[in-house]
Formats: sequence, C-alpha cells, structure tokens
Amino acid sequence: MVQVVVVGAGLAGLAAARRLVADGHEVVVLEARDRVGGRVEGTTLADGTHLELGGQWIGEGHDRMRALVAELGLETFRTYNDEGRLTLELLGRRTTMAAHKGAVPKLSPFALADLARGLRRFDRLARRTDLDRPWASPDAARLDGQTFESWVRRTLRTRAGRAYFRIACEAVWATETADVSLLHALFYARSNTDLETLLAVDAGAQQDRVVGGSVRVAEAMAAELGERVVLGAPVRRIEQDPDGVRVLTRAGETYAADHAIITLPPTLAGRLEYAPALPSWRDQLTQRTPAGAVIKAFAIYPEPFWRSRGLNGQVASDVGPVKVVFDNSPPTPGPGVLMGFFEGQEARTWARRTPEERRSALVECLVRSFGPDAAAPVDYRERDWMAEEFTRGCYGAHFGPGVWTGYGEAWRAPVGRLHWAGAECAPRWNGYMEGAVRSGEDVAQTLATGGRSSRGGHRLQENARQLPREGR
Amino acid sequence: MVQVVVVGAGLAGLAAARRLVADGHEVVVLEARDRVGGRVEGTTLADGTHLELGGQWIGEGHDRMRALVAELGLETFRTYNDEGRLTLELLGRRTTMAAHKGAVPKLSPFALADLARGLRRFDRLARRTDLDRPWASPDAARLDGQTFESWVRRTLRTRAGRAYFRIACEAVWATETADVSLLHALFYARSNTDLETLLAVDAGAQQDRVVGGSVRVAEAMAAELGERVVLGAPVRRIEQDPDGVRVLTRAGETYAADHAIITLPPTLAGRLEYAPALPSWRDQLTQRTPAGAVIKAFAIYPEPFWRSRGLNGQVASDVGPVKVVFDNSPPTPGPGVLMGFFEGQEARTWARRTPEERRSALVECLVRSFGPDAAAPVDYRERDWMAEEFTRGCYGAHFGPGVWTGYGEAWRAPVGRLHWAGAECAPRWNGYMEGAVRSGEDVAQTLATGGRSSRGGHRLQENARQLPREGR
Repeated sequence: MVQVVVVGAGLAGLAAARRLVADGHEVVVLEARDRVGGRVEGTTLADGTHLELGGQWIGEGHDRMRALVAELGLETFRTYNDEGRLTLELLGRRTTMAAHKGAVPKLSPFALADLARGLRRFDRLARRTDLDRPWASPDAARLDGQTFESWVRRTLRTRAGRAYFRIACEAVWATETADVSLLHALFYARSNTDLETLLAVDAGAQQDRVVGGSVRVAEAMAAELGERVVLGAPVRRIEQDPDGVRVLTRAGETYAADHAIITLPPTLAGRLEYAPALPSWRDQLTQRTPAGAVIKAFAIYPEPFWRSRGLNGQVASDVGPVKVVFDNSPPTPGPGVLMGFFEGQEARTWARRTPEERRSALVECLVRSFGPDAAAPVDYRERDWMAEEFTRGCYGAHFGPGVWTGYGEAWRAPVGRLHWAGAECAPRWNGYMEGAVRSGEDVAQTLATGGRSSRGGHRLQENARQLPREGR
Repeated sequence: MVQVVVVGAGLAGLAAARRLVADGHEVVVLEARDRVGGRVEGTTLADGTHLELGGQWIGEGHDRMRALVAELGLETFRTYNDEGRLTLELLGRRTTMAAHKGAVPKLSPFALADLARGLRRFDRLARRTDLDRPWASPDAARLDGQTFESWVRRTLRTRAGRAYFRIACEAVWATETADVSLLHALFYARSNTDLETLLAVDAGAQQDRVVGGSVRVAEAMAAELGERVVLGAPVRRIEQDPDGVRVLTRAGETYAADHAIITLPPTLAGRLEYAPALPSWRDQLTQRTPAGAVIKAFAIYPEPFWRSRGLNGQVASDVGPVKVVFDNSPPTPGPGVLMGFFEGQEARTWARRTPEERRSALVECLVRSFGPDAAAPVDYRERDWMAEEFTRGCYGAHFGPGVWTGYGEAWRAPVGRLHWAGAECAPRWNGYMEGAVRSGEDVAQTLATGGRSSRGGHRLQENARQLPREGR
C-alpha cells in the first residue's frame, strides 16, 4: 500500500485518486477551489438548465471517458450538429454548409484546392509525429524551429486557405498561429487523430456531451472518494526527501505521503514552492508552457429558434470577436443556448472590457448569423478562464517554438517522488477530458504497481535515487 | 513622503530604493537570498581573486551605470580585448581575427557578402522598432509571427552566415534562434543600439568591468541603505487594497506600505501569490517570458598564458559545448581566468551532468583554442543560473513569437499599487545592468513625484482606481 497526495481535483486528479483507492491505497486530494472539476465546471440557471462553463466534449475514440461515464451511472447525448446547417463567415462572405465531417465549404475551386492541399500536407507531417517523444520525431528541430504561422504563410496560397488554418488554430488552442510551434500543432493534431477530427463534431472531438453537464463526472468521482477530497485547500509548498513527501497548504496544514501527483496546469505547477527546488529542466519547461486565452460566453433564449430554420447553431467566422459558436442547449426540451468563444487575441482584448460589453459583442455576432431573434437573450453567462486564479487560461497549455526540442525530456518525467498528470501530460488525446483521465489513471497505475507501468521509463526506485541535490 | 516595499535586492531594486531614500521616502528592500545583487554575484578565490559569477559588463553608452560606479567610489577597467586576437571556430575551421568592432572574420568572399547583407537587413529592420511600444512597430504582427530562426533560414544563404547569427543569438539571449520572436530579437538589438554593438567589446556592450567585481555596485548601494535591506526574506504573497499594500514573506512577516516595486525576473514575479489575483493580461504575460539557459564556468590558471602568444582569450565557436569564452582575469597582475558560457541547448544538456564533467568539457574547449597549457587549470568554478531557485535562468527573459503583440501592453503597466522593474522592463539597454538600474530609478521617480514621470502613462491615481476587482 502506498500513501499518495493528489494536488488538484480536476478530472486527472480525481481519476488518479479513484484508481489508487480501488487498488487499496491511501489517498488525499487537495483542491484549491470550493468545488471539484478544475477546468470542468457547471452552473445552473434559474429554470434548472445546466450550463457547462469549461470542458464539455467527449469525442469519437474517447473510450476511457465514455466508459467512466457509464461506470458512474451517467449518460451522454449528441451535440446538436447535422440536423441543421453550419454558418460560415469567411473573407466577408456569409454562407451555410453541411455540418458532417468532411463537408466542403462554398469556396472558389482555387481556394478549395489550396485548402485540400494544405490539409493533406499538414496531415502527412502530423502522421510522422512520435506521440511519446515528440522531440524525437523526424525533422523535429526544423519543425520546432518555426511557428505554425510561418508554415501557414509558406504553405497556403489563398486568403481563404490561410484563414481556415488560423480559425482552426484559435478554435483548437485558443491562441494565434504565431504562438504555437509547428511541431506542437502537428503533435497535438496527431494526438487527437488529425486536424479534421479535432474540428469535427460527429465522428470528431465535439461529438457527445454528458447529460446534466460534464461536471457530473467530476462530482460523481468526488462522491466516491468522500472525505478524501479536501476543498478550499490551495497547495503552496511541497517538500520531499528519501522517506516521503510533505504537502503544505496555504492554511498551514501539512499532508505527508509516499508520493505526490501534481495535476495542475503546467504554469501553475511551476509556481508552487518546492523543497528541494525542482531541477532546472523541469522549472524551465513550466516557464515555457503557457495556457491559451479564452472566454466562454452563453446567450440563453426561450427556445432554440434557429433549429426550425435549418440551422444547427454553429458558426465558424474570421470576423469575430466571437469566431466559434455552438448550440449548447440541454438535451431535453427547454431553452435554447448559444455558446461562443472569445479566443486568442480576441480574448486578450475583450478580457479588458466589462461583462456587459462582452454580452453585446456576442449578441452582435449572433444577430449576424441568426437574425434579429438573437438580439434579446433572456440571460447571459460567461467564464473568463484567464482570470481564474486556479486555472489561468484554457483550453490548455501550448508549446511555443523550441520548447519540445529543448525541454521535451522533462515533460512527464517524475522528479523523485513527484509525478505529473493532467490533460497536458497525455500523449494520446492531449488537451481533452479523455487525455486528463488517461493521464491520471496512468500515473496511478505506475504508483500502484511500484513502477511497472505500461507507460515505461517510470521506475520509482531509480527516481527516488535521483532526488535533486540541494545547493548543487 | 511615500512608503515603498521593494521586492528583490538586485540592481533594479537597490537603485530604486536608493533613489527613493534620497528623496526622503521610506523604503524596505526584501531579498530572498542571504546576499544582495540578484543576477550579479561575486565570489573570491583562496588567493583573493574576485570572480563575477553573473552579470559583469558595462558597455559603451551605459552612462547611468558608469555614473553610479563613480558615485559609489568604484572604478572600472577595460575588458581584455584588442591587445590580442580572437579565436574563431566556424564550420570546422579554427582561425584568429582582430578583436575590434567591425573586424572581419576569414571567410570566403561569398560568405562575407552574405553575412554583411544579413547584418544590414537585420539592422534596417531593427532601426524601425518602437522601443517604448515594440508591439506598435511597423509590421509588428508579421515580425512577431515568426521565429528568429525562420528569418535566419530565409535570409542567410551560406552556412557561415547562418552559423554567425545562431552563435550570436546564443551569446546574446542564452537560447536558440528557434526560441525567440524575430520582433524580440530586433527590439533587443535596437534597445542595445545594434547587433554589432551587442556583440562587441570595445565600443560595445562588453567594454568595461568593475574593479573588484560588479557585485560591489550592489554591495555599495546596500551599504548606503543599511537596515532597510532585509536579507533571507523570500516574499510569498502581496496583498493590496485602495489603502495600501501588504507584502508577506515566507517566514510570516508582513510589511505594509503605500506601494510595492517588484523587481524579480518576470517568471518569478508571476509565481507570487497576489490578493486580489493579478489581472489576466499580466499573469498571461509572465507565463510567456521565460529566462534563458546558461551556465557560467571559470578555469583559473597561474597566469594569463595566452596573452603572450598574441591571443586575447576570447573564443567564438560553433562547436561547443562552450561557444563563447572571455579572458576574465582581474585587472591587476595575478592569475589568468578564462570564463566560458554553456548557453541554450548546451546549457540544457550539460545541466544534467556533474560539475566534474562540465569542468572537463570546458577544459577540452580551451585546449582546442589555447593548447596544452590550458589542460590543467588550478581551480574551477561555475554557476548554473537555471538551477538558482531565486533566478531560474539568465541572462534574462526573452519573448517568443506572439508575446509582444499579444501581451506587450502589460509589459510595464502597474497593477494598482504594484510596479514592475528590472532589466526586462527597460526600453533602452534591456537585459543589461544599465537597463536594470535605469528601470529601478525610473519607477522610483514615478512614485516619488506622484506619477509625473518622464516615462509617461504611469499615473498613480488612475491606477489605484483600476485595482482588479475580486471575483470578477
């Protein structure tokens, strides 16, 4: 039996704790907030309608998440999608198009050929990525030496082709093509099958949702864990020595254990005090893995009026400020919910405005696509994930140029008795709830079996010997 | 009179405190370490020889630093330079060349033309940079959308030309061309006049040193400040409200004041706990300003034997692992000191080895350039700045692609009663001791005059009204 402190009650932390408890180990989960879920969060409107303020989708192939939902007695439903047409705003022109995977937008033959060629080239490069060791992928130095933007400028010949990749980048990473290493874009796309799957709803990454909201997955795991989950306990400091770890909270409580699993987003994991201090390669990695920029906003209407007009509520736009919209209505008859993202530069700009201004901006975008009926929502909600002290950005961390090749080895490597988990630590389904759960369970498995994990390279005794030496 | 807590007793913090005290204000400087100086540090060998483990150079045009040295009763001397020839290892060939600014290496006419053209193009772009608002420079989005590496690959046609820029990048930013935004490279070069000046010794950024070591500047300022400087007091948390600030140390002490000046490197400033939490734009900026990677290493010999052979002890190499070497001997007759930098990827790799292995690696590089007399130094010293818990990388922070254009507005903007200073905050002489001192004095001036600084845009009352609202 091992004793483990888990830092963070997001999906990764809860899944790790649940697995450890099932194997008879002793676990405490320390959570900074007064709720569980981390980047998965729910809220309820006056009429009982659930909104998902954070991560929400279970995609095709997200098998572990799907099984977990079933284990916990929950159910999924389909994202509203190919019952209607998607609205596309591109280069000043508004059209609608079919919403199934592989559907072709109305573009000039030249633009379509350019886009198809660009997607083919991107996928061909992405397929070569080594998901367990992206820095060891063929030609990694060259791919990691440039921004995704440089590749887009060089590869795409048409304005529409470039706009497509830039919208895709904002939609997937909540940041601009300038901010992301080409190697990271390729890794992430491959980690989630391919770019088309990442962007698709049916047979893609946005296929299903959880009845009652994704936060019920976290809440159900937390309920199983009972008093092992301690809320309102921000961790401040982690000490380790050859005998064990001590995790100290801001309130001054100390939790001792054999190991700690740290499931915070990398940029927050890097801010804790560690004694001994973390080795430089780990610290410099977390200096270089910023979180994306996104504000998730909701306009609530008496009913999903767009549906009867053959529209599925989805928008993809290069106009903005809200460039991606989904029909996020609940599965049962009830209000209509249009959810839009302020992403990347738009999020940075609009974060400085008031909620009222953001509401107006969202509504203006919705009126463009869905007409005057969208002008007067009955309610508005939003979550600025950048402003959340215990998240500091969504959807997840991205790697800029040079980071994978400079610091990749430190990505998932334990530091003595400290182990890293979370959506950012997943080779497969990186960035999604699926990746978070897999990552948490994977680390739990490693600890439970004394290091004989299928993941490999994770030998505990060896790591314990490699404790950083103080004052080195 | 205002009360100010200064966080960090590096040159910026000490200079800010000194200026405030001179104007009759009340100041406390809180320093995490048991010494002052921050990234400026000295040590003494058994024979009394001073070594500078961190920042050491006063360049041409570093007028404020030069004046400060004089005010403090200290003296400077010239870096050993054009008394001998510089050793160049490039593309497998070792040659020597004159060491004055503008000296031309022995390269093929084609490579020389390529290099000259590349330098001209770089300087032409750099001259257009808006130093106070780099994100507002002409064509900023395009320049910030690519890595310096992409520009090097596209602009330079010869292997020698590319190698030159890559060595230069490592020497200036202690990181690879892949890691740096082209806009940042241009800003930084312009901030320090131009790339040639940055790399030069005489009439350049490495022209002079301080007799007794640069740390004497910090120590002399600290001596003036007396008990106002509190050592061994790492700051953990900063609270502010409309009435003032409270700065809390790890030991649980609280310092109340009207304002706080935070002089930590950005990545460390971002790790403190703030109440209320910092606005997202500031937090996301510090997620994106990592420190460079460098280990400074010294081989000490009975005398500077290379001088009598017409060599100045300097090496520029594309072989490595030590690619930049200087004669760092004291100004008075005594031992010979060769100082070399492991930079960028070499620093990352060699940080995982032992001091003995690094010593051997340095010596091997020195023997290549200076012959068998370099094989047996009488002493070896080193400082791995990445491993320093209270620095976490040198020489300074760099901006990757997208950061200036995405977050530039937050660069120096105060957050209510919190003000930022340090070498990274300097529009002119960014990254140097000169920039640190100017930045500290500039913020002090702003506070002392109630916001009527020449720097502009720094109105205190307005900022106090803009305190981030909690729970927004």
